[in-house]
Amino acid sequence: MSKYIVTGCAGFIGSHITDRILKLGSSVLGIDNLSTGHEKFIELALRNKNFKFINIDLIDLECLKSAFSGGDVVIHFAANADVRFGPQNTRKDLEQNTIATYNVLESMKFNGIKKIIFSSTGSVYGEAKQFPTPEEACFPIQTSLYGASKTACEGLISAYCEAFDMQSWIFRFVSILGERYTHGHVYDFYKKLRNNKSLLHVLGDGHQRKSYLYVQDCIDAVIFAFQNSNEKVNIYNLGVDDYCEVIQSITWICDYLQLSPTLEFYGGTKGWSGDNPFIYLDTNKIRKLGWTPKTSIKEGVLKTVEYLKSNEWVFNERN
Amino acid sequence: MSKYIVTGCAGFIGSHITDRILKLGSSVLGIDNLSTGHEKFIELALRNKNFKFINIDLIDLECLKSAFSGGDVVIHFAANADVRFGPQNTRKDLEQNTIATYNVLESMKFNGIKKIIFSSTGSVYGEAKQFPTPEEACFPIQTSLYGASKTACEGLISAYCEAFDMQSWIFRFVSILGERYTHGHVYDFYKKLRNNKSLLHVLGDGHQRKSYLYVQDCIDAVIFAFQNSNEKVNIYNLGVDDYCEVIQSITWICDYLQLSPTLEFYGGTKGWSGDNPFIYLDTNKIRKLGWTPKTSIKEGVLKTVEYLKSNEWVFNERN
Repeated sequence: MSKYIVTGCAGFIGSHITDRILKLGSSVLGIDNLSTGHEKFIELALRNKNFKFINIDLIDLECLKSAFSGGDVVIHFAANADVRFGPQNTRKDLEQNTIATYNVLESMKFNGIKKIIFSSTGSVYGEAKQFPTPEEACFPIQTSLYGASKTACEGLISAYCEAFDMQSWIFRFVSILGERYTHGHVYDFYKKLRNNKSLLHVLGDGHQRKSYLYVQDCIDAVIFAFQNSNEKVNIYNLGVDDYCEVIQSITWICDYLQLSPTLEFYGGTKGWSGDNPFIYLDTNKIRKLGWTPKTSIKEGVLKTVEYLKSNEWVFNERN
Repeated sequence: MSKYIVTGCAGFIGSHITDRILKLGSSVLGIDNLSTGHEKFIELALRNKNFKFINIDLIDLECLKSAFSGGDVVIHFAANADVRFGPQNTRKDLEQNTIATYNVLESMKFNGIKKIIFSSTGSVYGEAKQFPTPEEACFPIQTSLYGASKTACEGLISAYCEAFDMQSWIFRFVSILGERYTHGHVYDFYKKLRNNKSLLHVLGDGHQRKSYLYVQDCIDAVIFAFQNSNEKVNIYNLGVDDYCEVIQSITWICDYLQLSPTLEFYGGTKGWSGDNPFIYLDTNKIRKLGWTPKTSIKEGVLKTVEYLKSNEWVFNERN
């Protein structure tokens, strides 16, 4: 039985892939420092005898080296995933993304683990000149500390593959949504509407275009590409062949909740420093391999709202 | 009078740019930890009243923040510059390149310094698919820890420019040679021939093609582009419109030294893990701006040999 090590196992996407791997019959060692992950997200996994959880921080290299013992594949999904606060805390992306990934790779090398699956981001394309943006777009100029750190991680992973005969599957995600989604637009809007049903402040002008992928489609794609591609470094964009404007998403959410708040826009056309008004990825490469998303953006948004409605505990705690 | 801060001021290229800036009448605060730099390289600068030297390590952020006080422009040339030993000491590129650059940027932010000139490398293109390789080549897959770390630095610099209203001039160098060159092929071959005049071991098959730029041409280009371009992020390839094979370089060196050693090749077609058999950059962007190199590859190689012949002290000390 293969042993998978999942970093960020109590996070949004990390907990879903943990559940999926367990369902497929493999064992999972889940690692999370619970700084943004939730124990509730691994409640199901914890009832499975093939799951073991360790609470450690990826910054602790020695701990990580010993935790990785006996692993076959590392799914490295732990990250500082919020692009917005880079300028307020520049060290976060460096430590939690770049240095943490270095530590993961060192721990793999130490334990002879040869395969890594990594969650990158469409933000690595900076302000892309080509839409939809293919994997081989022109050399990007980074516009966010988050994108810069994920580019640094991709570079480290590829260089380790070359130097130490490892193999990697790198996925550049658009925004992902669905059950357990606890940051980003839908979460923010829902939270604001919970506090004030009649007024919604919206960062940006509402016309930022976004391409969202439903989390189960994302997990399908990751597993499918891992099983069906075999280069040294396998890089895939993940997204849907469509996009929406933030304002459309707001309309879907409000219709679902039967609310009609006044909308107040602020902050100009770009949401935040380093925000990219349009991330829209060319997913032909993984589509040619045989994967297709099953869920539309609207369905994904509504599934997320539905989840939040049934799990309002996510707004308490530290959020 | 503008105050320049030069990191790596006692290194090969750093000491040349220090001399040039002083010659142009500005003041220089030189920073070096002398781990690979040489005090002899700043002998001339130290006699200039506009030069001040501080021996600190860029890893020490607090020291760096206070050292940067009052600077106008940072020339960040300190780096682990040897691509070959990444796999033996993976932490070196991470610390001396990525984290050191982060510290430089943080110290600039802390002191309100808005301009940075950075020495990147043609290695950021990985194994390029296009020759000569332009700045906008397709998104590269990194093949060396060195290239990965310089890509990480470029990303950090660009993201800081976006987030904190800074401006950057990033130069992707081919191999540079000339006076004070104390690593790389010419240095290695000269050193080996000094120990054994009749036999020369050559890493790789001798057919690795390399494009070399003479250090004074490199400094000309850096100053010229800094003075004549004004984007937020200015990226330029630096090199000559020509290349040579390692074997040609060996012939020039041996002819100059009047030696005819037996050549023994080892290590296959690639010199070392992550070595790129061919780095050849498209320099049209900076040529259009108005810069042209004046020195051929052969002249550059011979100037380097001449320098080594008159400065054999470089082979003593820690080398």
